[in-house]
Amino acid sequence: MVQTGAIDVSKYYTQLRPEATKDYVMQQTMIRVKDPELSLRFYCDVLGFNLVMHREFPQWEFNVYFVAQIDPAKIPSDPKEQWNLCMNLPGCIELTWNYGSETSDGLVYNTGNSDATGSQDGEKVKGGFGHLGITVPDVYEACERFKAMGCEFTKTPNSGGMKGLAFVKDPDGYLVEILPQGTMITKPIDCDGVATDGGSTYKDNSR
Amino acid sequence: MVQTGAIDVSKYYTQLRPEATKDYVMQQTMIRVKDPELSLRFYCDVLGFNLVMHREFPQWEFNVYFVAQIDPAKIPSDPKEQWNLCMNLPGCIELTWNYGSETSDGLVYNTGNSDATGSQDGEKVKGGFGHLGITVPDVYEACERFKAMGCEFTKTPNSGGMKGLAFVKDPDGYLVEILPQGTMITKPIDCDGVATDGGSTYKDNSR
Repeated sequence: MVQTGAIDVSKYYTQLRPEATKDYVMQQTMIRVKDPELSLRFYCDVLGFNLVMHREFPQWEFNVYFVAQIDPAKIPSDPKEQWNLCMNLPGCIELTWNYGSETSDGLVYNTGNSDATGSQDGEKVKGGFGHLGITVPDVYEACERFKAMGCEFTKTPNSGGMKGLAFVKDPDGYLVEILPQGTMITKPIDCDGVATDGGSTYKDNSR
Repeated sequence: MVQTGAIDVSKYYTQLRPEATKDYVMQQTMIRVKDPELSLRFYCDVLGFNLVMHREFPQWEFNVYFVAQIDPAKIPSDPKEQWNLCMNLPGCIELTWNYGSETSDGLVYNTGNSDATGSQDGEKVKGGFGHLGITVPDVYEACERFKAMGCEFTKTPNSGGMKGLAFVKDPDGYLVEILPQGTMITKPIDCDGVATDGGSTYKDNSR
């Protein structure tokens, strides 16, 4: 079967939002994390998020931490006001910690990308979730900083089939894509010494 | 071992964003979808997103569709301008379609929530991704509309341990949490006829 991938999606660019949905906000993506201290350090210190709200549920043995990229001067100290801010902020990440996971050896959760973690037979799982994506003014400069901070890359900007994009791993192995807000390729050599005409071809990690 | 869940995270509320990260944007969450037409219909018609950019990669046999909650009058028609808009919009969802998946029987991708889909042994996988979350002015009203549109719920607002929140499934079975921007409980009886003092207790779907 030849697949062309051509389907007509033009109406979804122009159709009016249903009136009932006009104030809806895509507010969060929830991921489970093994150790919240490691995750908060990564998302805040490396990627520039701040904690905007957290809630503890000892009766159910889990906590949640909402992080967002926002000027911390705008984050109130009152929990009720934090809720109101957080629930109206698009693009928060909800980090969920189930108590005790931090004492496990190795990785705990399946990341969605042909990953065997969390399976019962140790075989790769065809996962649906792919990655979070952060856009930055300059991917090459951002990746030099990430490399200096010890981040693990699965793709530096010039490696792989799509030049100018990178992937780093968070502490649980979730992929974080780094994409440019403007110019795709800003430097001939990336943080790993790979030239724009180097690297390999496109690798699909979904199958 | 007794877990209290109490860890000191206060510094993450107040610490300054590293200077290098001050323009970073949490722009996307990528999920793989079996049939992009079904997914676009759900995210646009039910949840009020519009398509802001799509790209076709026939050489690699996949397409991507970026959807966001935005006034469609602000979406340019030029692909380069669409890129510039999209890369600066927080909270986009990237729907990735691998050609041919739409011809599969049943569900294709593991959703992250104790789901056996995509495993090789048919057993549940301990998944990391939990859900997307949409905030709305009134969860109860939103859910009445979702029910009328035929959405499948895994939790209506008054069922389960947390009152005022709901979960619906997207066409691939991914969970979408529906949360309030303001008041938690607005009606005594929810769309499924469950009273605020009804329903069951908290159910964890991560283990």
